[in-house]
Amino acid sequence: MMSRTLRIDEDGVLRTIDQTLLPFERREIALRSVEDCRRAIVSMQVRGAPLIGAVGAWGLALALRDDPSDAALHEAWRWLLGARPTAVNLRWALDRAMRRVAPLPPAQRAQAARGEAMAICDDDADCNRRIGEHGAALLEALRERLAPNRRAGAPLNLLTHCNAGRIATLDHGTALAPIYLLHQRDVPVHVWVDETRPRNQGASLTAWELAERGVPHTVIVDNAGGLLMRQGRVDAAIVGCDRVAANGDVANKIGTYLKALAARDCGLPFWVACPVSTIDPQAVDGDAVPIEERDAREVTHATGRLADGTIAAVQVVPDGSPVANPGFDVTPARLVGGLVTEHGVFEASAEGVARALAAGLAGTARTAGIAR
Amino acid sequence: MMSRTLRIDEDGVLRTIDQTLLPFERREIALRSVEDCRRAIVSMQVRGAPLIGAVGAWGLALALRDDPSDAALHEAWRWLLGARPTAVNLRWALDRAMRRVAPLPPAQRAQAARGEAMAICDDDADCNRRIGEHGAALLEALRERLAPNRRAGAPLNLLTHCNAGRIATLDHGTALAPIYLLHQRDVPVHVWVDETRPRNQGASLTAWELAERGVPHTVIVDNAGGLLMRQGRVDAAIVGCDRVAANGDVANKIGTYLKALAARDCGLPFWVACPVSTIDPQAVDGDAVPIEERDAREVTHATGRLADGTIAAVQVVPDGSPVANPGFDVTPARLVGGLVTEHGVFEASAEGVARALAAGLAGTARTAGIAR
Repeated sequence: MMSRTLRIDEDGVLRTIDQTLLPFERREIALRSVEDCRRAIVSMQVRGAPLIGAVGAWGLALALRDDPSDAALHEAWRWLLGARPTAVNLRWALDRAMRRVAPLPPAQRAQAARGEAMAICDDDADCNRRIGEHGAALLEALRERLAPNRRAGAPLNLLTHCNAGRIATLDHGTALAPIYLLHQRDVPVHVWVDETRPRNQGASLTAWELAERGVPHTVIVDNAGGLLMRQGRVDAAIVGCDRVAANGDVANKIGTYLKALAARDCGLPFWVACPVSTIDPQAVDGDAVPIEERDAREVTHATGRLADGTIAAVQVVPDGSPVANPGFDVTPARLVGGLVTEHGVFEASAEGVARALAAGLAGTARTAGIAR
Repeated sequence: MMSRTLRIDEDGVLRTIDQTLLPFERREIALRSVEDCRRAIVSMQVRGAPLIGAVGAWGLALALRDDPSDAALHEAWRWLLGARPTAVNLRWALDRAMRRVAPLPPAQRAQAARGEAMAICDDDADCNRRIGEHGAALLEALRERLAPNRRAGAPLNLLTHCNAGRIATLDHGTALAPIYLLHQRDVPVHVWVDETRPRNQGASLTAWELAERGVPHTVIVDNAGGLLMRQGRVDAAIVGCDRVAANGDVANKIGTYLKALAARDCGLPFWVACPVSTIDPQAVDGDAVPIEERDAREVTHATGRLADGTIAAVQVVPDGSPVANPGFDVTPARLVGGLVTEHGVFEASAEGVARALAAGLAGTARTAGIAR
């Protein structure tokens, strides 16, 4: 697992990248204790739901290494959960590890927790690898359809929003997984990277991780994608997603809806890559998904590197002007060309979502039967 | 003309706001010579096509005050034009002043040039005042249509992109003119202000000038407008425009197209405010309008105020990641609810554009007959 976002080095130490320093510095940090793991989550050195969950599970394993008692187990679970109380995936991973180790005698817990943390990482990487394969098949088919009107060797031009990449997950990413796979297969591909204000995850994280793997890309402001689509410089859009509603509506980073509209207006495919676990059958439609109103400072300020190399925030909104900062928007199912999951591509509709859920249940049952 | 962007003070000195300091400092600068006028244009202390044109004409008048000879006149014309060679409106204003003064004996030129510069300012302010009246009628009608489903006193919620306001013009602005008029008439109004990356004219200029006049507003990132429209928090969008093609397509600041798509998808009016002079009958459609590719640094960096009060640029894109920066996009006529001009509201179509042009010609003839 050398190339993973979270990895065990030869010296047996867990290491990851300090994402607060990206895109300007690539510095690895060692997570040697439960304290290190919690600190990495709190300080946002690690981010992205799957990565936070995995670091939480590793934290539990490291706590049990030091003290495998019932009291220590429950204390570590509680303390790690407090690192980001709203992170659904952190709770899911901690609960999964807890279920595995709680019934065991204390002497066996540390090793079992380590095994479970490893399995959580493997499962995420494997899930994304499969999303990558299903997505790559879509992209290859698109490339073939476009081939008669293209010069040989012309890249497939994809647009993405925010960061649904390797460093938000254990490996591959979701929206970027098919792109990495194509690039690996020497299929020429080029990515238009939306800056993704207000937190600039596109400019700072997506551009960085694509550059690190040598994937050709171009950063654009969020305003530019519509023009590029109209000009025929985009072949398809592919994004990740925070939650899929029962009817196929998609809640994702603010601005996703606008790109989906432009893709539809220009006759281009708009795909959403997501593990089946992203589906929330409790949400009837996108309007049932609560939209988080985030800190105004994300809008009033932009963070980056000054000429002298220091990282700083500059204020871009006048003093006293009110600000609104909704974190997500809803893309209606009718604009989504397909949900690219680890179990295949499903229509963004009530029927497609039901099928994806069924495939997910079947997949879980199978995995559970084989592995545990 | 106390409230104008460019004004003659009681001491006879021409003054304007240094827009490079906005939105953090309101500092007036005096334009006492042709050199001052040219410097203000070159350094972008003044910006916006109408304002640049007016400052150019005033520069010519100030040059002639010092030396009214043929040689000085032509030298000043050439030198001022060089301040921003691509600014169509600068050339238009300089040529208009030149045509007025060149036939006159040198002794009469300075006063005539001053009169012409004043007329250029008056014409722009008057044009925008009329755009404001026609636009306000649209907005009042919309407000009446919405009234049955609104609580009394609820504001009309308008979304705008970039800056098509007072400080880009001599007064009133174009897209903001109807909004100022409603506010003046005590009609409750609230403006969603798009940040407008990459140069942030919305966050820095539109928010500032609305705040200065006490117009309620909220700054949002460019990604947010679609969600707000879907949530019913926007009643209409109104923007300015750089060029209208013969078929009614509109070229405006990058990102305009995305907001027009969202307005259409949500069943909301999308209006474009523009003087008839913005129509380019030579451009068959929007695709015939060349799209300027601007400096990459606008995308790689964001400029604002540091905590210590100094203005600085921070880099937000990783070293070596390529960037694209198209300055404008094209909104197809089918998405535009109407062109709000000084001669009334016209359909965004070949027929509507032809009618607007005819009204413009009739208007010019009338003005010329009355005033000159």
